[in-house]
Amino acid sequence: MPHRESLRVAVLGAGHGGQALAGWMALAGHRVRLFNRSAEPLLPLRSGLTLRGAATGRVRLDAVTTHLDEALEGAELVMMVTPATAHRPLAYRMLPYLRPGQVVLLHPGRTGGALEVARILAAAGLPNVVAEAETFLFASRVEGPGEARIHQVKRRVRVAALPAHRTGGTVRLLQRIHPAFAPARNVLETSLQNIGAIFHPAPILLNLGRVQAGIPFDHYHEGITPGVAAVMERADQERTALAARLGVEVLSARAWLEQAYGATGRDLYEAIQANRSYRGLKAPRTHQHRYLTEDIPTGLVPMVSLGQSLGMEMPIMDSLVRLGEALHHVNYTAEGRSARSLGLVGMSPEGIRAVVELGFAAADSFARVDSNPFYDKAGV
Amino acid sequence: MPHRESLRVAVLGAGHGGQALAGWMALAGHRVRLFNRSAEPLLPLRSGLTLRGAATGRVRLDAVTTHLDEALEGAELVMMVTPATAHRPLAYRMLPYLRPGQVVLLHPGRTGGALEVARILAAAGLPNVVAEAETFLFASRVEGPGEARIHQVKRRVRVAALPAHRTGGTVRLLQRIHPAFAPARNVLETSLQNIGAIFHPAPILLNLGRVQAGIPFDHYHEGITPGVAAVMERADQERTALAARLGVEVLSARAWLEQAYGATGRDLYEAIQANRSYRGLKAPRTHQHRYLTEDIPTGLVPMVSLGQSLGMEMPIMDSLVRLGEALHHVNYTAEGRSARSLGLVGMSPEGIRAVVELGFAAADSFARVDSNPFYDKAGV
Repeated sequence: MPHRESLRVAVLGAGHGGQALAGWMALAGHRVRLFNRSAEPLLPLRSGLTLRGAATGRVRLDAVTTHLDEALEGAELVMMVTPATAHRPLAYRMLPYLRPGQVVLLHPGRTGGALEVARILAAAGLPNVVAEAETFLFASRVEGPGEARIHQVKRRVRVAALPAHRTGGTVRLLQRIHPAFAPARNVLETSLQNIGAIFHPAPILLNLGRVQAGIPFDHYHEGITPGVAAVMERADQERTALAARLGVEVLSARAWLEQAYGATGRDLYEAIQANRSYRGLKAPRTHQHRYLTEDIPTGLVPMVSLGQSLGMEMPIMDSLVRLGEALHHVNYTAEGRSARSLGLVGMSPEGIRAVVELGFAAADSFARVDSNPFYDKAGV
Repeated sequence: MPHRESLRVAVLGAGHGGQALAGWMALAGHRVRLFNRSAEPLLPLRSGLTLRGAATGRVRLDAVTTHLDEALEGAELVMMVTPATAHRPLAYRMLPYLRPGQVVLLHPGRTGGALEVARILAAAGLPNVVAEAETFLFASRVEGPGEARIHQVKRRVRVAALPAHRTGGTVRLLQRIHPAFAPARNVLETSLQNIGAIFHPAPILLNLGRVQAGIPFDHYHEGITPGVAAVMERADQERTALAARLGVEVLSARAWLEQAYGATGRDLYEAIQANRSYRGLKAPRTHQHRYLTEDIPTGLVPMVSLGQSLGMEMPIMDSLVRLGEALHHVNYTAEGRSARSLGLVGMSPEGIRAVVELGFAAADSFARVDSNPFYDKAGV
């Protein structure tokens, strides 16, 4: 019998993160159903999952399934532990099965995840709380069939819910899983703190020749030279300026390195070089890597789009997006998260804050008055 | 005594190109005065210049000077053999000394060189013919004090004059120096054929980590991977689209490789790999290199600016410019050649063609009618 604090959780995504998290929760007595789009990674898990590292043991999950309805049935909490590019299609697939009381957590949401999913749910008449974490709780790896290792548990994972007044209750729910979960002010704060958008695409693009030739090098300590860091720092200034415009405070990349790792320097280059935790972290050996394919459409693109919708120039971030588009022959600007796809196009900062505080349904009348008349006429 | 065909030529710039060209012309019996801004490279040349390679001999120049007035005095032809970023300041410095009949050749002009210089001269009431070469006649190097080597003489160097109807006479003048000079249709053709704008900045920026770390690699055969070439090919499409919009035909980078080197491939990547002449050409070991500091402000920036002035999007070229700006902390967009600095802002393609056919003075009334009313009101 599960103990009285046990939660019923659906984990969507059986990758490195999903397997470790499902195992951790099951080991703690929660009832976990694990969904994955493809059956292959699930097959060894039907007989159980062995966890190592920060938690050790063997568990059986309540369900291991490729059927979303089976995973969601009876869950109090739905955790998406997938690449952020899967949030949108998964949200649409969940529509027939999601029940009003179920809390959805994007773990993590990258930039605009909660807004994107909540808007899809709201348009279908579903008022569910949608929350996003600023990062994933663990550093973990699938080591073999049915075997996952938790290398590290983060000290703090901030979460914000949409609408923002539901953040407190959502965090209390999540703290039954791990005390590291803590409240952020709102989803703009979690979305704009997405440091991967700064640390991932630029070093890959500015080392593209080496990456594509498969020449090994350290992503941070070798790939990020003073010039690469100068480009990243300019992109980071665009991110922090956007946050300031939207009335939320985020840490600069340099300040974040100090807070997260105690690494300091006079500029971003020095702070990265001073961070010993980055030692030996290898750069991708291919340009078809989530540092581009995920961080561009769910990191850089929504920041550029939100900024431009507010009349800001985002030249460096936009340049990185354009180069990624030319490289991959993908129109990330059109296909990624945008002010339009997040339901925020043409809104003032006040209108956007109303949405994140009140949610799409409640902010609707306010947003309509506030929004750009052009888009109103266009019926968007 | 000089023979009857001898020309009086001022060569401005005593670098690898200027010394070889001055020596070549003096050896052929022309009367050459060599100017350089700084005295240092000139000192050994006062006693003479030894030429090796495609031409061999020792010559004395008529003058070797840091005084522009002395260099220009009596010259029929003024050749600027400097980085293209020096064209503008040199044009201003020449204003007090230039005489109406003197022909100015930018050798080479990069993108917009003749337009930039001619506009400065026209504004000062000087109607001189200003021509630009699409490339430099030689591959040459200064090997030591007073010693230059001509490694290779190009088979064809196309030249266009501003106004275009003066191209024929200018080319006949230049053919007294070397028969490789040939006429181009107009300066838009020479300016937009600037292949260095495609082949230089992108591979440096997309290999910035390696370049700045001083890791040696071949600029073309190692630095240009399929992904780097994909970005270059997109930039090249922006260049050829701009040329088409302006009614001139230019070779694509791939077609140019076939014409210049006989190198072919199904795409730009394959054609570059197939070009044996690129074998062993090392990439710069620093990001402070003319492949960025010259090719951005006098190649990419004027193409982006002209295109945008015509309502075209130039996203990839513009992205490369923006990254160069972040890297060097230089506002190349403002400081480089632009539709505005070339006197073409707000003009239609027809207005721009009128300028290149007729020159600034003659096209003036036409251009005023044609130009954007906003800029007219602003008095630009």
